[in-house]
Amino acid sequence: MKSISKENIIYEFKPDMKHVEKVKPDNIVKFHANDAFNNQIQSEDTTLEEVDFSKLNPATGPLYVEGAEKGDILKIKILDISIPNEGVVVTAPKAGALGDMVEEPMTKIMDIEEGFCIFNDLKIPLKPMIGVIGVAPEKKAYSTGTPWKHGGNMDTKDICEGSILYLPVKQKGGLLALGDCHALMGDGEVCVASCEISSEVIVKVEVIKKGEIEWPIVETEDETMIITSGETADDALKEATRQVVESLSKGRDISWLEAYLLASLVVDLRISQIVDPKKTARAAVPKDVLSTEGINRNEN
Amino acid sequence: MKSISKENIIYEFKPDMKHVEKVKPDNIVKFHANDAFNNQIQSEDTTLEEVDFSKLNPATGPLYVEGAEKGDILKIKILDISIPNEGVVVTAPKAGALGDMVEEPMTKIMDIEEGFCIFNDLKIPLKPMIGVIGVAPEKKAYSTGTPWKHGGNMDTKDICEGSILYLPVKQKGGLLALGDCHALMGDGEVCVASCEISSEVIVKVEVIKKGEIEWPIVETEDETMIITSGETADDALKEATRQVVESLSKGRDISWLEAYLLASLVVDLRISQIVDPKKTARAAVPKDVLSTEGINRNEN
Repeated sequence: MKSISKENIIYEFKPDMKHVEKVKPDNIVKFHANDAFNNQIQSEDTTLEEVDFSKLNPATGPLYVEGAEKGDILKIKILDISIPNEGVVVTAPKAGALGDMVEEPMTKIMDIEEGFCIFNDLKIPLKPMIGVIGVAPEKKAYSTGTPWKHGGNMDTKDICEGSILYLPVKQKGGLLALGDCHALMGDGEVCVASCEISSEVIVKVEVIKKGEIEWPIVETEDETMIITSGETADDALKEATRQVVESLSKGRDISWLEAYLLASLVVDLRISQIVDPKKTARAAVPKDVLSTEGINRNEN
Repeated sequence: MKSISKENIIYEFKPDMKHVEKVKPDNIVKFHANDAFNNQIQSEDTTLEEVDFSKLNPATGPLYVEGAEKGDILKIKILDISIPNEGVVVTAPKAGALGDMVEEPMTKIMDIEEGFCIFNDLKIPLKPMIGVIGVAPEKKAYSTGTPWKHGGNMDTKDICEGSILYLPVKQKGGLLALGDCHALMGDGEVCVASCEISSEVIVKVEVIKKGEIEWPIVETEDETMIITSGETADDALKEATRQVVESLSKGRDISWLEAYLLASLVVDLRISQIVDPKKTARAAVPKDVLSTEGINRNEN
C-alpha cells in the first residue's frame, strides 16, 4: 500500500497542484493526516489565540489517481481512520456560533479510551471522521479551511469510516488531499472545533468515468447525502434542496414538481457545520429512494 | 376520557383565550385535529391557490389544565396519533424553500396503507407527528401558522407518538391547542406541506410546578431537544446553540465555556422547517448527557 507522509501538506486546494504520490484506480492508499492545528497544540496551556493561523487545517496530499479526468467522479471508500489516545478541543473569543459571547480562550485535552472520548465524567462514543477532504477545483483556489464544490472543510460527520465519498474531478488525476480528522463531532461543530486528532486514514480510490455531480455526495449504509455550502446556513440549505429535488426528478424519472413534493416527505435537511468561512448543510435521502447512481446525472 | 371536537378551533394563540374543555392534571384527553387546510382540499383538482388562507392551520382547543399557572411547565405525553387512509401534499408558486422556482400549483392525494404512505411506486414508512401545538403566550398573539416560544407551527417531526413535549405556561390553565398532523415529514418540509392528515390525537397532560424553560423541549426515547425559531435558519440555529450551551452548563454544573466545548462534541443541530413565517431548528442532546430535569433551570 502506498502512503503519503505527514510532511506533504497543502493549505489551499488549487487548480494547479503538484501531486506527491500517484496510484492506479482501485488502489488503497494511506494518508498520514495532521490535526487541524498542525500539531501546534500539545498542552492545555496553548490557546487557539497563540497558534499560527497560516498553519491551520493542513491537508495531506495531493494524490494523483491515474485515469481521472475532468468530467469524471472520484469515488473514495473510507476504510479506516486511526484514533490516537488523546484529542483536543478549543475555543476562543469570536470563535464558533457564539463567538460574541466567549470571553476567554479554552483548550481541553481529552483522553480517548476503548472507543470513548473522556470529557470530565462523561464518556462520549467515538465516530471518527474526516473534516477536510477535497480535490483540485476547476478555476479558483480555496483555503483548506473553506468548504465548497471541490470538497474542502466540509466538517460533515458522515464522511466517516465505512462511508463512500464522491467528488467531482476537475483536473487530471483528481489530486486528492485530506486532513483535520475528528474522533467525533456534533452536527454544527458549534464551538469551532471538535475532538481534533492526527490520524492515519486508509482509503480506496476509484474513478467513475464521465460522471456528473455538482457537489460532493456521501453515501452511508442507509442514505445518500448531497453536501452543499453557502455564505449562510439558509443559503446552504436552499442549495441542498435545489440539488436534491433535481436529483430526485432525474433519478426517479418524475417531474421537477413531483420531486419537490417527494423531497418534502423523504428528505432530511441536516446541518454539517455553521462555524467555517462558508456554512455546510446536507440533504439526506434513504438509498432506496435515491441511489448514488440516481445522482450521477450522466448515467440517467 | 374527555375529548374536544373538531369544530372547536383557533387560528391564533393569544394570551386571552376561552377554553372549551377543562381537565385535572394527569388526565388523558382526545383532540379531534383537522388537517392544515381545515379540510378544504378533498381532491387533486383543488390547488393551494384556491383555498381560503384565513382557514389554514386550525388548532383544536384550547384545553384548560387545572393547577397550571404562569411559571409552570405543561408536560404533554403524546400517546396516540390516529392515521386516516389518505393524506394530501401540495405546493404552489412562492411556496416552500424553492417557491421562486415553482411555476404551477400541484396537489397530490396519497393512499396510506399498512404503515406506509404510497407515493407513485414508493412506499414511505409513516411516522405520525403533530405540526401545530402550543399554549397561550405571555403577551403577544401569534397566528397558528407561526412557531415561537409558546409552541405553534413548529413542524418538528420528533413531536410524535411516544414523545413528551414540554411547553412554558404563561397563562392560567396553560390553554393547550393542537392540529396540523402529518403522517410523516422530512426535516425542512421543503415544499411547504407534508403528508397532511386529519387525526385524533390522544395526550396525557401533566403540570410541573415552578419549572422554567424559555422554549419548547421535546423528549424522545434517546434525546432531549430544545426547539427554537427565528427569522432565518441561521437565527434559529444560533438561538438553539445559545440555549443548549446554557442548559448543559446548568444541567451538568460546568462553566459556560466548558459547556460550549461539550456542545461541539455531543449536540446535533437539526432543522425542523425552513418554510413557515419563522424558521425552526432544534438542538438534540443524548439524554444521558442532558435530561429534561437538567433543562428545567429552577430545579438546579
